[in-house]
Amino acid sequence: MKKLTIVKVGGKVVENPESLTAFLNDFSLIAGDKILIHGGGRSATALSEKLGLKTNMVEGRRITDAETLKVIIMIYAGLVNKNIVAQLQKLHVDAIGLTGADLNLIISDKRPVKEIDYGFVGNIKEINTQVFIELLKRNYVPVIAPVTHDGKGNLLNTNADTIASEIAKTLAFDYNVRLIYCFEKRGVLMNEADEESLIPVLDFELYQQYKNEGIIQGGMIPKLDNAFRAIASGVKEVVITSASDVNKEKGTVIR
Amino acid sequence: MKKLTIVKVGGKVVENPESLTAFLNDFSLIAGDKILIHGGGRSATALSEKLGLKTNMVEGRRITDAETLKVIIMIYAGLVNKNIVAQLQKLHVDAIGLTGADLNLIISDKRPVKEIDYGFVGNIKEINTQVFIELLKRNYVPVIAPVTHDGKGNLLNTNADTIASEIAKTLAFDYNVRLIYCFEKRGVLMNEADEESLIPVLDFELYQQYKNEGIIQGGMIPKLDNAFRAIASGVKEVVITSASDVNKEKGTVIR
Repeated sequence: MKKLTIVKVGGKVVENPESLTAFLNDFSLIAGDKILIHGGGRSATALSEKLGLKTNMVEGRRITDAETLKVIIMIYAGLVNKNIVAQLQKLHVDAIGLTGADLNLIISDKRPVKEIDYGFVGNIKEINTQVFIELLKRNYVPVIAPVTHDGKGNLLNTNADTIASEIAKTLAFDYNVRLIYCFEKRGVLMNEADEESLIPVLDFELYQQYKNEGIIQGGMIPKLDNAFRAIASGVKEVVITSASDVNKEKGTVIR
Repeated sequence: MKKLTIVKVGGKVVENPESLTAFLNDFSLIAGDKILIHGGGRSATALSEKLGLKTNMVEGRRITDAETLKVIIMIYAGLVNKNIVAQLQKLHVDAIGLTGADLNLIISDKRPVKEIDYGFVGNIKEINTQVFIELLKRNYVPVIAPVTHDGKGNLLNTNADTIASEIAKTLAFDYNVRLIYCFEKRGVLMNEADEESLIPVLDFELYQQYKNEGIIQGGMIPKLDNAFRAIASGVKEVVITSASDVNKEKGTVIR
């Protein structure tokens, strides 16, 4: 099977023009088929503030009312996505910036209201695998903003980590998929304050142990849950690493 | 040759949710290959105002400083473009929302400063014809926001009328192209205040005469100049019509 690298890059790296440029340069050097999924992080919060909208986060997820959804679409699908595409084109990567609405790539349902009403947030229902394969066959590099649609004309804010793992899972039937989650730290750490405490390899058993011991906690848990689900669905390797190491064999490898 | 319909829809239609929905419904009924180019109009001005930015227009063209460019990208390439795509998908049109940066579709140069410094505004240099043809062959419907790039990592605000005529001209070698400019009025009028004074057919000679007599004036002149240049370059027919007549044989036909 052909190799496919799927990279998710998050808020902090994307926010800062210097770190974004350095990251995109490294990303451009990854050989073979690749897909980039990006967040937008604080740029959306900053615009919301300027427009006098309140930002409500629950467990790291944004409560998305109608006005906040507009900000998400403007920042993620507009400003961040198209700036990444323009920069990749400069680096001779044939990038195409897309949301889940484009070509009906990612269909989601509005998250049902239980204890918390997340608003216009999507739970992924279906990935249009064949269209991704067609784009990759033409050597296009999809750059995916974390916005999906419900097929009824509505756009929905959708978690970028989940989009990355869902795309990885569905393409694992046709490609040897390597899924890389990039963020600010070197990888999964034994001690968050100590960059030297990197866990180089993590299997499910060790993950359960570290979780029970409270070594792994907070925002890392949904990320790793996603990672292990991807592995269970046939993704060959998940790597959690620093954005500056995206094209190096570093970080925490999940198998 | 295969038929291709290229539609440009402007500000006022796009701004109003009801008129946009009605227009997209009509657009979805156009048979065969098609491309939609949209403006964004006053939504960009409204967001600029909320953000405390001044809007400067010279001869109907926006002076685009760095902050205004961000607004343009957010509104045109983000909010407007993705809402159109989501609505077209609902109507079973396989829309894909793109800027000139995506797949390197439209390359432009920053407009040189003469009497007026337009800021980050692009003059189109090159259209990537083959990629448009590939997209159309897959039955994708490109939805183009009026943002292009210079190939050096910079996005540029670009006139949507010009994008429409340039795409029409370059595709005229491979398709029978019908280019439709949609706006609020029924077509080119003898008397702007009288919707009954429609000019049904306009050739270059008559256009020159009406221009000299002051019957045709203002914002209609660059639109018609674009139209006649398209005809001269092999576009089969240009129609200037009301958005509500996009799939009807109405309006002013330019030959």
